[in-house]
Amino acid sequence: MALAIICSGGDAPGMNPAIKKFVDYVYKRGETPYFIYDGLEGMIDGKIKYAHHEDVAGILHNGGAIIGSSRSKRFYEKRYREQAYRNLQDHDIDGVVVLGGDGSYNAFEVLGREFPVNFVGIPTTIDNDIYGTEYCLGVDTALNVIRWAVDNIRDTASTFKRAFVVETMGRECGYLAAVTGLSSGAEICVIPEMNFNKNVAAHFLKKDLAEGRGYILAIVAEGTKMTQNIKEWLEEDIGVETRVTVLGHIQRGGNPTVHDRMMAFEFTVRAVDLLLANTGIRKAISYRNGEFVPMDISEVNNGKYTIPANILRDLHFLD
Amino acid sequence: MALAIICSGGDAPGMNPAIKKFVDYVYKRGETPYFIYDGLEGMIDGKIKYAHHEDVAGILHNGGAIIGSSRSKRFYEKRYREQAYRNLQDHDIDGVVVLGGDGSYNAFEVLGREFPVNFVGIPTTIDNDIYGTEYCLGVDTALNVIRWAVDNIRDTASTFKRAFVVETMGRECGYLAAVTGLSSGAEICVIPEMNFNKNVAAHFLKKDLAEGRGYILAIVAEGTKMTQNIKEWLEEDIGVETRVTVLGHIQRGGNPTVHDRMMAFEFTVRAVDLLLANTGIRKAISYRNGEFVPMDISEVNNGKYTIPANILRDLHFLD
Amino acid sequence: MALAIICSGGDAPGMNPAIKKFVDYVYKRGETPYFIYDGLEGMIDGKIKYAHHEDVAGILHNGGAIIGSSRSKRFYEKRYREQAYRNLQDHDIDGVVVLGGDGSYNAFEVLGREFPVNFVGIPTTIDNDIYGTEYCLGVDTALNVIRWAVDNIRDTASTFKRAFVVETMGRECGYLAAVTGLSSGAEICVIPEMNFNKNVAAHFLKKDLAEGRGYILAIVAEGTKMTQNIKEWLEEDIGVETRVTVLGHIQRGGNPTVHDRMMAFEFTVRAVDLLLANTGIRKAISYRNGEFVPMDISEVNNGKYTIPANILRDLHFLD
Amino acid sequence: MALAIICSGGDAPGMNPAIKKFVDYVYKRGETPYFIYDGLEGMIDGKIKYAHHEDVAGILHNGGAIIGSSRSKRFYEKRYREQAYRNLQDHDIDGVVVLGGDGSYNAFEVLGREFPVNFVGIPTTIDNDIYGTEYCLGVDTALNVIRWAVDNIRDTASTFKRAFVVETMGRECGYLAAVTGLSSGAEICVIPEMNFNKNVAAHFLKKDLAEGRGYILAIVAEGTKMTQNIKEWLEEDIGVETRVTVLGHIQRGGNPTVHDRMMAFEFTVRAVDLLLANTGIRKAISYRNGEFVPMDISEVNNGKYTIPANILRDLHFLD
Repeated sequence: MALAIICSGGDAPGMNPAIKKFVDYVYKRGETPYFIYDGLEGMIDGKIKYAHHEDVAGILHNGGAIIGSSRSKRFYEKRYREQAYRNLQDHDIDGVVVLGGDGSYNAFEVLGREFPVNFVGIPTTIDNDIYGTEYCLGVDTALNVIRWAVDNIRDTASTFKRAFVVETMGRECGYLAAVTGLSSGAEICVIPEMNFNKNVAAHFLKKDLAEGRGYILAIVAEGTKMTQNIKEWLEEDIGVETRVTVLGHIQRGGNPTVHDRMMAFEFTVRAVDLLLANTGIRKAISYRNGEFVPMDISEVNNGKYTIPANILRDLHFLD
Repeated sequence: MALAIICSGGDAPGMNPAIKKFVDYVYKRGETPYFIYDGLEGMIDGKIKYAHHEDVAGILHNGGAIIGSSRSKRFYEKRYREQAYRNLQDHDIDGVVVLGGDGSYNAFEVLGREFPVNFVGIPTTIDNDIYGTEYCLGVDTALNVIRWAVDNIRDTASTFKRAFVVETMGRECGYLAAVTGLSSGAEICVIPEMNFNKNVAAHFLKKDLAEGRGYILAIVAEGTKMTQNIKEWLEEDIGVETRVTVLGHIQRGGNPTVHDRMMAFEFTVRAVDLLLANTGIRKAISYRNGEFVPMDISEVNNGKYTIPANILRDLHFLD
Repeated sequence: MALAIICSGGDAPGMNPAIKKFVDYVYKRGETPYFIYDGLEGMIDGKIKYAHHEDVAGILHNGGAIIGSSRSKRFYEKRYREQAYRNLQDHDIDGVVVLGGDGSYNAFEVLGREFPVNFVGIPTTIDNDIYGTEYCLGVDTALNVIRWAVDNIRDTASTFKRAFVVETMGRECGYLAAVTGLSSGAEICVIPEMNFNKNVAAHFLKKDLAEGRGYILAIVAEGTKMTQNIKEWLEEDIGVETRVTVLGHIQRGGNPTVHDRMMAFEFTVRAVDLLLANTGIRKAISYRNGEFVPMDISEVNNGKYTIPANILRDLHFLD
Repeated sequence: MALAIICSGGDAPGMNPAIKKFVDYVYKRGETPYFIYDGLEGMIDGKIKYAHHEDVAGILHNGGAIIGSSRSKRFYEKRYREQAYRNLQDHDIDGVVVLGGDGSYNAFEVLGREFPVNFVGIPTTIDNDIYGTEYCLGVDTALNVIRWAVDNIRDTASTFKRAFVVETMGRECGYLAAVTGLSSGAEICVIPEMNFNKNVAAHFLKKDLAEGRGYILAIVAEGTKMTQNIKEWLEEDIGVETRVTVLGHIQRGGNPTVHDRMMAFEFTVRAVDLLLANTGIRKAISYRNGEFVPMDISEVNNGKYTIPANILRDLHFLD
């Protein structure tokens, strides 16, 4: 059988370990691995190539994805989806491993309804916002990159009486900001999932500052669009000079952590096994309670991820 | 109630986040936190002090343990254990959170049989060798420190035709070496749990080298005492110049990863909750299948940790 | 004799190694070291304390400054400067080592004209914008922090066709941005010292993109206030999706590099030697052509730093 | 004109930035760049290829050397040197830039006496042991890798009463160990250039330990072959449990620091300029007093590097 792997949407650390495992494991199973380059755009344009062992040598510790990725507007049109399907047929691809987030999952669900394409998705996004899975590939690396940045700021923060606002990624999901807030001991954490009560926060911050608090650290999720607002509030209402750091794509880069490598291996082996054992398969693999569970792609796409209750609860530190 | 925290045996990253959470959370629960300094030695010598919020400010990102740790020969004698118990009584300590490995667990099991000491253990050792739990605090940080070192060696390895032997910690348990072997794509991995078949390995390595392999990476667990042996075998039998790196205590240090911080928080909250809700408690908290489970200390101490079967299976890459 | 050390203005990595060397070396010379806490504000408020060996144990690898720093509006008023001078007298301080940038140098020049205060400045600012010296303490660490961030972005950049704008610190001096631009191989570098010709740049970028260039990296110095402008130009005129990273105070933090530690030692020994050998001294130490040279503070303050010509010349890569 | 670049002997961080600059700058000067792959061995075997811009894209942040390196026994025989010379002639190579240490310098000096080969050496070795230059490419990166490792050990050291021995590279030159000893505040530093007086050291260490010193850090240069000896002395004579770390090739790897990148650029531009402006040139570029100075290769090879006196003097901290 011939299996292909594709990266779709925003890249995430862990893609390269998954790509390497895909090639090695498909060969080990006696089958034939293919790459689809440059995401959905490349699938439409027929950028599909046979994968060699040498292609994946020495890539475990690189961020990004050696086969590229993309977002595709053309894929919204049926004629381009048909073209993509034909390209898979031309290379006799029997199944596709999809590394991507919810946008990519939706794209493949549509494709799979229209054409007999077998695929298994691996949740891959630093936003950690996919329903049904506790973990998305790339999150651990992103969290540790943010940790490094925040710890650097702490160094300088303790020298001055100041506030620091750090904006993390996360459009609709505040997972990165929430876990960073907890694990860095931030004083303020602003995420889309929670209302940030400035009055309550101001009360406690002013009390702390009066008692000698040295500095204030605020973690703000990009999706709240509150970064500038929080900065101004800290300067005007709380009365401390405030500096902003916008981490941006630093968070997507970097050497994948051991956790992301091991999870990439686990996800990939299961995705390949599923494709080799089944036809008519349109699944995504979810990780929950320590287990890897295949779910129907439609179930995943119809659900909405929520941050674990215990994390949200612990964030109410200012109430 | 008054609760104390103690670090015992080898230190591990994640101790400081656990110590911070302990102080913050015991206060939050309305109770009184104490530190036992310098491990069992300090408990014998009465180094027990009331803990303040300020003591734990800004320690989340430090390796080591601000309250110190120790190994204690005196604790093997009953008169010193009694002395330790009297010290706890003198400070009206109602329960102790124990951060340590199997040696520390054994020490407290003995103490608990002789005296009415309530305690809950948190598995804390980079060796990851405690029965009943899938995860011990500090392991994730140690693995990522090793990753950094191995990736550095890869850089230079690809320039030369050479072999590199990296010795990781792990006396009786090869967990660190095994996971490093897999996640770094090492060609050789030698651990106490598996017999390393030199003949088979030599066959494959020579074939690879003949086909153009650039370099060889071997991960060896300290406990096998095979580091020098593997070096000589690579030079004499395989015929490649070989260099050795002994990581040593680098692996115990470093800024705790986000995973180790979050796990430290989870373990600590549960340990405190258990102690506040029970008397006559002599437990350790284990993590398995995504859940935190209290186990009787005797059950933990009587079992023997084994590396997960799937990790061992994947290591048979040369067979 | 009694010598004091003060940190003034923005903090920089290397301050702690300088503080440690100051204490150790003043003792070695048989004299008495003092700390002035919290910068000029602390000097006004009399926060001056005797320094012990233990105060500086284990601080070599910490960013920030253990004695704090500040900017001071009060110091612009003579009555507060007089108050600061009286505080120095009260502690019988014979000379002050000043770690700071041009603002701090100016403050001490004024103080020294009004009162018989002996001082020697050590150029300490990640902006590297002090006249007369090729190197300011903290620059090497800041450059390597930026390097780390930019290399992380490169990882993800090569996966996508995109542009990335990274804003570095530097109000009036583009040194950090310029050296980052060169050492990271950026396509665009925008600094206050040079006019950025968009037409010329657009011509070359469009040609490169047409020939297959994968991504564009732009380094922009904060002081140009062009970050948003360059982002919009890249999206609208060049036609590539563009993401922004604002590094902010990450650049001030972090473990001082070996170079910053060694330079801190060299600067500090010379500053102490100068103060012990002279009275009526109002100098700053400059580093040029591999030598440490004392300069009159007025000469330093009257000059204007310019980026070395060869760096500016190499930045004309788009012309 | 056609110029080639070769890496010879042990690799060092900074080789890739030099290789990239070489290709870019030779093109900029309107000439033709070539690679000699796999060092002297490759030169003997005719592994010489035309270099393209694309070959050096994205390599600035990689350790190692993309064109490989080697040590060569064959090169000691004249017939192989002649063969190497013929290969250069076959590709019409007019000059060679040599990245290497003293072994490579010697090899080229011999070659240049026998055949009309133009070459300019760039001092490239983490040992920093080449006569006439204050700086060898790769040293700054190696020092910062060691710093990271030592700072990690400090974390754990402060938890326990223990001694730690860290072995750095350096066969005949203790530069890395000496600078590490100073910049990390180590208690002991053992290098080939100095006699380590155990009696004196024991006197001071025992006094410190009695006064409460928490731990001991010893830096030992590989070339002294004293690592095991110092460990045993610390355990038996000083009476503290001691752990050993052998850094090995970690020190050669890693992302080149900004300093090594900038120095690589400076060295390379000067080497190319020299080759383009002269014939019959057999030089090496030295860095001293802030300047880059061409020296006759024979002068460099006849001298012996010594560690700067001020570094050695500061290391007498135990006397």
